[in-house]
Amino acid sequence: MNTFGNNFKVSIFGESHGPALGVTVDGVFAGIPLCEEDFYDDILRRKAGASGTTPRIEGDVPEILSGVYEGHTTGAPVTVIFRNENTRPEDYESFRKHPRPGHADFTANLKFGGYNDPRGGGHFSGRLTLGIVAAGVIAKRMVHFANIQANLTEVGGSANPDSWNALLKAAEQDGDSLGGVVECVAEGLPIGMGEPFWDSVESKISHAIFAIPGVRGIEFGDGFKASAMRGSEHNDPFPEHQCHHHDDPDHQCCGKHKCQSPPLTNHAGGVNGGLTNGNPLVFRVAFKPTSSIAKAGIPGRHDVCFAIRTPVVVEAMTAIVLADFLR
Amino acid sequence: MNTFGNNFKVSIFGESHGPALGVTVDGVFAGIPLCEEDFYDDILRRKAGASGTTPRIEGDVPEILSGVYEGHTTGAPVTVIFRNENTRPEDYESFRKHPRPGHADFTANLKFGGYNDPRGGGHFSGRLTLGIVAAGVIAKRMVHFANIQANLTEVGGSANPDSWNALLKAAEQDGDSLGGVVECVAEGLPIGMGEPFWDSVESKISHAIFAIPGVRGIEFGDGFKASAMRGSEHNDPFPEHQCHHHDDPDHQCCGKHKCQSPPLTNHAGGVNGGLTNGNPLVFRVAFKPTSSIAKAGIPGRHDVCFAIRTPVVVEAMTAIVLADFLR
Amino acid sequence: MNTFGNNFKVSIFGESHGPALGVTVDGVFAGIPLCEEDFYDDILRRKAGASGTTPRIEGDVPEILSGVYEGHTTGAPVTVIFRNENTRPEDYESFRKHPRPGHADFTANLKFGGYNDPRGGGHFSGRLTLGIVAAGVIAKRMVHFANIQANLTEVGGSANPDSWNALLKAAEQDGDSLGGVVECVAEGLPIGMGEPFWDSVESKISHAIFAIPGVRGIEFGDGFKASAMRGSEHNDPFPEHQCHHHDDPDHQCCGKHKCQSPPLTNHAGGVNGGLTNGNPLVFRVAFKPTSSIAKAGIPGRHDVCFAIRTPVVVEAMTAIVLADFLR
Amino acid sequence: MNTFGNNFKVSIFGESHGPALGVTVDGVFAGIPLCEEDFYDDILRRKAGASGTTPRIEGDVPEILSGVYEGHTTGAPVTVIFRNENTRPEDYESFRKHPRPGHADFTANLKFGGYNDPRGGGHFSGRLTLGIVAAGVIAKRMVHFANIQANLTEVGGSANPDSWNALLKAAEQDGDSLGGVVECVAEGLPIGMGEPFWDSVESKISHAIFAIPGVRGIEFGDGFKASAMRGSEHNDPFPEHQCHHHDDPDHQCCGKHKCQSPPLTNHAGGVNGGLTNGNPLVFRVAFKPTSSIAKAGIPGRHDVCFAIRTPVVVEAMTAIVLADFLR
Repeated sequence: MNTFGNNFKVSIFGESHGPALGVTVDGVFAGIPLCEEDFYDDILRRKAGASGTTPRIEGDVPEILSGVYEGHTTGAPVTVIFRNENTRPEDYESFRKHPRPGHADFTANLKFGGYNDPRGGGHFSGRLTLGIVAAGVIAKRMVHFANIQANLTEVGGSANPDSWNALLKAAEQDGDSLGGVVECVAEGLPIGMGEPFWDSVESKISHAIFAIPGVRGIEFGDGFKASAMRGSEHNDPFPEHQCHHHDDPDHQCCGKHKCQSPPLTNHAGGVNGGLTNGNPLVFRVAFKPTSSIAKAGIPGRHDVCFAIRTPVVVEAMTAIVLADFLR
Repeated sequence: MNTFGNNFKVSIFGESHGPALGVTVDGVFAGIPLCEEDFYDDILRRKAGASGTTPRIEGDVPEILSGVYEGHTTGAPVTVIFRNENTRPEDYESFRKHPRPGHADFTANLKFGGYNDPRGGGHFSGRLTLGIVAAGVIAKRMVHFANIQANLTEVGGSANPDSWNALLKAAEQDGDSLGGVVECVAEGLPIGMGEPFWDSVESKISHAIFAIPGVRGIEFGDGFKASAMRGSEHNDPFPEHQCHHHDDPDHQCCGKHKCQSPPLTNHAGGVNGGLTNGNPLVFRVAFKPTSSIAKAGIPGRHDVCFAIRTPVVVEAMTAIVLADFLR
Repeated sequence: MNTFGNNFKVSIFGESHGPALGVTVDGVFAGIPLCEEDFYDDILRRKAGASGTTPRIEGDVPEILSGVYEGHTTGAPVTVIFRNENTRPEDYESFRKHPRPGHADFTANLKFGGYNDPRGGGHFSGRLTLGIVAAGVIAKRMVHFANIQANLTEVGGSANPDSWNALLKAAEQDGDSLGGVVECVAEGLPIGMGEPFWDSVESKISHAIFAIPGVRGIEFGDGFKASAMRGSEHNDPFPEHQCHHHDDPDHQCCGKHKCQSPPLTNHAGGVNGGLTNGNPLVFRVAFKPTSSIAKAGIPGRHDVCFAIRTPVVVEAMTAIVLADFLR
Repeated sequence: MNTFGNNFKVSIFGESHGPALGVTVDGVFAGIPLCEEDFYDDILRRKAGASGTTPRIEGDVPEILSGVYEGHTTGAPVTVIFRNENTRPEDYESFRKHPRPGHADFTANLKFGGYNDPRGGGHFSGRLTLGIVAAGVIAKRMVHFANIQANLTEVGGSANPDSWNALLKAAEQDGDSLGGVVECVAEGLPIGMGEPFWDSVESKISHAIFAIPGVRGIEFGDGFKASAMRGSEHNDPFPEHQCHHHDDPDHQCCGKHKCQSPPLTNHAGGVNGGLTNGNPLVFRVAFKPTSSIAKAGIPGRHDVCFAIRTPVVVEAMTAIVLADFLR
């Protein structure tokens, strides 16, 4: 439902145009330095303002309600809320009768018997990813050993960043929208993160990523291309040299010997058998074009390409999943 | 870990070459007709024998240990086990020292301090999907209203079935292997399955699908192509005609009016805002080529293209997730 | 951890002397009328002021942050917060060095490496039960069919309410404190609530009740007395008359026939085999005397007998568990 | 439902007179020595045969199906099953029409629409505690640092063991039954086990204990007596001497200083604020008298006092909960 995770639990609440939205993060280690300013950088990365993003500028000011004392986490749940300002609910009154294409208006309306909050998608709004970004800031400190970087690699089908502004302007002039692709790489992960059978690294990452509104696909390593490759091309070989320690029947692998180093190539995207293998975790996420377009007469203020704002959300989701794998 | 689901729980246990493997399914409605013969069809679909699959022929005979009385489910957990026969453990003794590319040998060995069962991948073996198929048979009866069909759509990069045998033979002669793509379509789903925020239909389906060994990617509806489309192309419009009932403030949408019918197109793959929208649920899964190849000197008996055996597993996972969404 | 429930999830956050405390309730049915005033009655029942309770008077004003739109629940998580006012943190600064008997000062300090919030017990304070009371108000509307009543039946070992004021005054004069017993009765429950094997009604109720600070024991029906009874005394017989419908092998019991009516007596407290049997659910909870006593030189403002304030908390926990059993 | 635990998951399946019953234990550390003989001692402690227990003698032979390789746990789920032998289903055919007092016959029949297995209580039978005992053997090895001892302290209301045989014989002659009380003590627990808010030690222990058929109450430390005590009697004081380390603001308590030693008395039963405090965990469990009595014309073979067989089950539940608190 609205809570994710076993050891590191992230609970989301709020609506796009309600009093506030926020997140409660449970299972945070005690003693992590944390204050409200620590959230600003990632919030700004998600925030509107850049070319191709919505003119709706929110304050996006985080307030820590619990779980922090004298500048450090206490081990109790950390709740962070964001008050909604600058809302224009009148834009959304008609959505119950006229559900917008590509939004939850139609499905949420039926699921909740017409009681769902229709304003800006209510609880289904992409605005809730603000809470995810806040949880991600905390999660990143839980997995401080990891370097997680997500970047936009495609806009409107183009992998050439120089072309992106032109594509965005053209789409905007046509009252239309564009999609994009985000690639995420996490380095420095210990070998063996992930849990058989159900909680493979890919299972948990994809579970979290598909909770981001507008995701259409995810692939790890070679991804869909792997289905067209031969085993001899796709396999990631291990170093030749073998471990002499293994002649000792009692030897337990420590992963520190050369013979136990990660595969030499990374077609798998850093995962074998659902567990991290010591190579960088690599995956790509496909985002659909923004559903609300002026061309279709949808009122409201929207991004031409909301994918531009998602790399920090993808990073946050990745950190949340990795933090949940910690024991 | 090894249990998936909230209302319909599927717990997997066993190893490829241990005494047995099996599954416990909890949350099964009482009164569903069930006997051991009911598992045969899907087990046969997964079973080896067809061109391009492994010569290792298991009995794969299901034994129901619990949860069934006088031919009907009782409401108690249903446990089904499969005894392993025809095992050749000697093939696998060296894998701890010489981890196989693309397998869990390396990661499991480190994660479990050298205590994991190395025989045929042990608990990480694709053989455990036999338990998934069994759980799927039960799940399909839970979601009897749904028609779930998964099919192989690509082998070795070719979408032309006529070419597949040639590709398979060529790969086999080279001691190599091939990947494939499976498409799954689920029709007849009620509107509104799925749960915000975290348990979108895509989140739960992808979580389950990535638990299948060898999956590299998943995409819904237009999938990755959507990232290169404009909103005006990708959006699924709703029928024009509006519902007069909505002038009645107390009206609660029943989804039965024409004005509340599903979108006219299905670029989204049957999901809006993470909830089923009444159109067919459509997704594609990319499988890597078999990792164990004679060319690389890996002993054991393996499929040239294990993807050929996975459609029934993909169906089972889909049914398991849908059954878990039932209340 | 800080979230309880499978279908009806209650997540608690906050500290006694932090900015705020609150609760997020997920799995709330859509369309339930709810506004802030609806919380007042139960909050007042818990509030200080009556004889024998603490002079610390909080505003205890609930603010609904999410999950409610136009006076009805939306199906999204409902978050209610309470700002802390009138705090006197200076009372508590020394507790890390001088842990108070009967409090979490000592254990929390060690568990969280000295980073826990020591002010008034921080996250371990009985003040967090304010969030439980709020969740209980919502839960009671989920199980509207049930009539849940908890009452104080003993104070300081006396079952005679007329004696209670004298006992309280005497304890107060001595700078000492008293314990108490609360009995809870829930009527109108459908037959069959509860889940085998682990989630018996008693299991879930006791799990929730022992989360209330200061509980020392719980017993259902005859409780501990049952261990000294013979089966012939303790058994609850069923009505003699048998159901003729049962001659029909296809008959499925509807529980409406006289022959299927609940047991004639209620030594079991309304539960058979962990499932409600149609008789009133009856259990008793033992509360310890308040740990902070002037006699021992513990600063701060405390109840002589905090058990006086707990019946509404016990009711709330009962409603929360029953709501979680709903499907 | 039928799975308990977050990190150490215990899943129960099977029926009293079905083909088999068993348990799957997930989250078992890799490398723990384990073989089938290791279960014998605790199985024998639960087994029938002693005075006052049932003449139904089962083989109770454990078979390990998974999770063990070359005499050690592998980190994968451990499944242990017990084949049922010596069943007399004919005794139970009439229970659907004539539900037995104190059993689940009535409630299970209604909950599961008449499809539940009625033979010997089916899935609700006390026989399923055999699986709990098996899980307990594994759990005890997970918490090897703890010394867990449960003993019968009362039979038929008498705390004098010398009187017990006479009471049992008398009850048997009358075709009647007796209840009992079991006390459990766990020593050697680290300080700080348990999780706020919901997963206090008492919450999880009571949750597990009430899953044992026939439990009527549980109390920790002084238990119900505490409700009649004054704070000055019930409080457990800490040693006087204070820690000089605490003058250093960066000092983090290690619990090893005298000033950080556990309370001097143990009225609380080893728990403060829901967390273990370093004193022995102490609790008592009240068991009802056996419900099936010849006097009431209930066929089948039953214990005069089944409580006699439960200490090892109480120990197992305690070990299971403690193992689940491990990280």
